[in-house]
Amino acid sequence: MNIQVLSLFPPMFDGVFQHSIMKKAQDKGAVSLGVVDIREFADNKRQVDDYPFGGGAGMVLKPEPVFNAVESITEGKKPRVILMCPQGERFTQKKAEELASEEELVFICGHYEGYDERIREHLVTDEISIGDFVLTGGELAAMTVIDSVVRLLPGVLGNSDSPVRDSFSTGLLEHPHYTRPANFRDMTVPAVLTSGNHAKIEEWREEQGIKRTLERRPDLFEHVELTAQQKSVLARLKAEK
Amino acid sequence: MNIQVLSLFPPMFDGVFQHSIMKKAQDKGAVSLGVVDIREFADNKRQVDDYPFGGGAGMVLKPEPVFNAVESITEGKKPRVILMCPQGERFTQKKAEELASEEELVFICGHYEGYDERIREHLVTDEISIGDFVLTGGELAAMTVIDSVVRLLPGVLGNSDSPVRDSFSTGLLEHPHYTRPANFRDMTVPAVLTSGNHAKIEEWREEQGIKRTLERRPDLFEHVELTAQQKSVLARLKAEK
Repeated sequence: MNIQVLSLFPPMFDGVFQHSIMKKAQDKGAVSLGVVDIREFADNKRQVDDYPFGGGAGMVLKPEPVFNAVESITEGKKPRVILMCPQGERFTQKKAEELASEEELVFICGHYEGYDERIREHLVTDEISIGDFVLTGGELAAMTVIDSVVRLLPGVLGNSDSPVRDSFSTGLLEHPHYTRPANFRDMTVPAVLTSGNHAKIEEWREEQGIKRTLERRPDLFEHVELTAQQKSVLARLKAEK
Repeated sequence: MNIQVLSLFPPMFDGVFQHSIMKKAQDKGAVSLGVVDIREFADNKRQVDDYPFGGGAGMVLKPEPVFNAVESITEGKKPRVILMCPQGERFTQKKAEELASEEELVFICGHYEGYDERIREHLVTDEISIGDFVLTGGELAAMTVIDSVVRLLPGVLGNSDSPVRDSFSTGLLEHPHYTRPANFRDMTVPAVLTSGNHAKIEEWREEQGIKRTLERRPDLFEHVELTAQQKSVLARLKAEK
C-alpha cells in the first residue's frame, strides 16, 4: 500500500512514521509512507491560506495548493482522497478494514484553518473524523487512521500480537488480563486464572468480557450476535445488577 | 500544566511534541511535556511484559514497572492518571475542557500488550478511549488527547486561531468556508459571500451550519438549545428534504 499525506507541518510525522509498527511495516515492504508539504504547491509567496469570503475570524486553506499537491501525487490515478475534519464520517474499525483493502490512500490535513469548500466538493472522496473533539490540525487524526489501517496489512503484525482477540474485533470489550507476579503489593490475581482448569478459565473470561461490556459499553450488544451461552450469561448478570 | 507520558516508545512523541502547537505552548511556558520510558522501571532484564495467567496469545504489561514509573513522577502528589485504552470512556470536547483545568496529568500508553488489571484498578483515575477502532498502542491516542487539551490552555492559541467558532464549541457543525480565488477552475464561490451584505451572509452561514448538521450529524441537535430563529430554519430544511 502507498500512503501519502499532505500537511503544512511534515516534521510532525517523523516520530510516528519512523518507529514501532510504522517502521516495521515499511521495512517489511507492506507500506510506503510519504509526507508532502502543501506549502511547496503554493504560489511564490508560499501563501497557503487566505481570509474567508464574507468576513469573519480565522483563515481558510486555499484550493490551488491542495489541488496541485494531490495532482502531483496521483498522476492521473484515482485513489481515495481522505480529508480529516470534524464534520466527517466517524472513524470505526469497519472503516479501517475497508481502507486496508485499497492500494493507495491520500490524506489531507488542515491546520488551524478551515478548508475551502471546493476541496471538499471536488477533490476528496472521503471525509473522516476520529471523534467529537477539536484538534489543532488533521495530522494526529491522519496518523491515528493510518496506524489502524497499516496494522491490518498482511505480514505487519506477528503472531504474538495478532489482531484476532482485540477489542472491537469480537464486538465486545475484552476480559481483564493478569500477569506475574501473582501477588503484587498484596494485590492478587483471581484464583481461577492460576487453577489450571482451562474450561473454567474460558468461562470466567467470557463472563468478564460480557460484564465489562454491560458496565461500560452496553450499546455494543446492539451490534453483536451473541451465542446462546453468552445470552444466558448476560441475562444472569443483568438480573444480579 | 505539567504533562508526563509513560510509553515503551518515547521517540514516537518527538515530531508531535517538538512542532506546531506543542512547541508553541512549551515556548510560552503554558505546558511542560515529558515522556518517561516504562522500560527504565523494569527489573534488570528490562522485561516490561509477561505471559497472561490462564494462558492465551498476547503479552500483558506487568504491574511493577508501571506503578514504579508513575510513582517516580508523582512523588506523593495525586494527579489524574489516565490510561489510554479501547475500554475507556469515550473522549469528547467536554472531557478535554475538564482535563484542561488540571495542573498535572499523567498518561499511560500500552503498546500491543494488554494491561495487568491491577494497573487499571489501583493506579489510574481515568480510562479514556478516542474511539471504536484498534490502534497499535496508546501513544497516538495520548497525543490526540494532549493536543486537544493543550490548545485550550490560556495563551496558547492567538486571536486569529481562536477556538470560539470551532465545530463542537457551538454544538453544531460549521458552515462551509471559501477563500480566494472566487473562481478556481470554474468552481465558484456562492454569490452571497461576495455581496457585502453582512446580514445575509450571517443568515446564509447559520442556515448552512444547520443544513450540514442535519445531513451529517442530526444526533447533535439532541444536545443543543436552538434559538427560535434556528428552530424555524431547521423546520424549513426538514420540510424541504
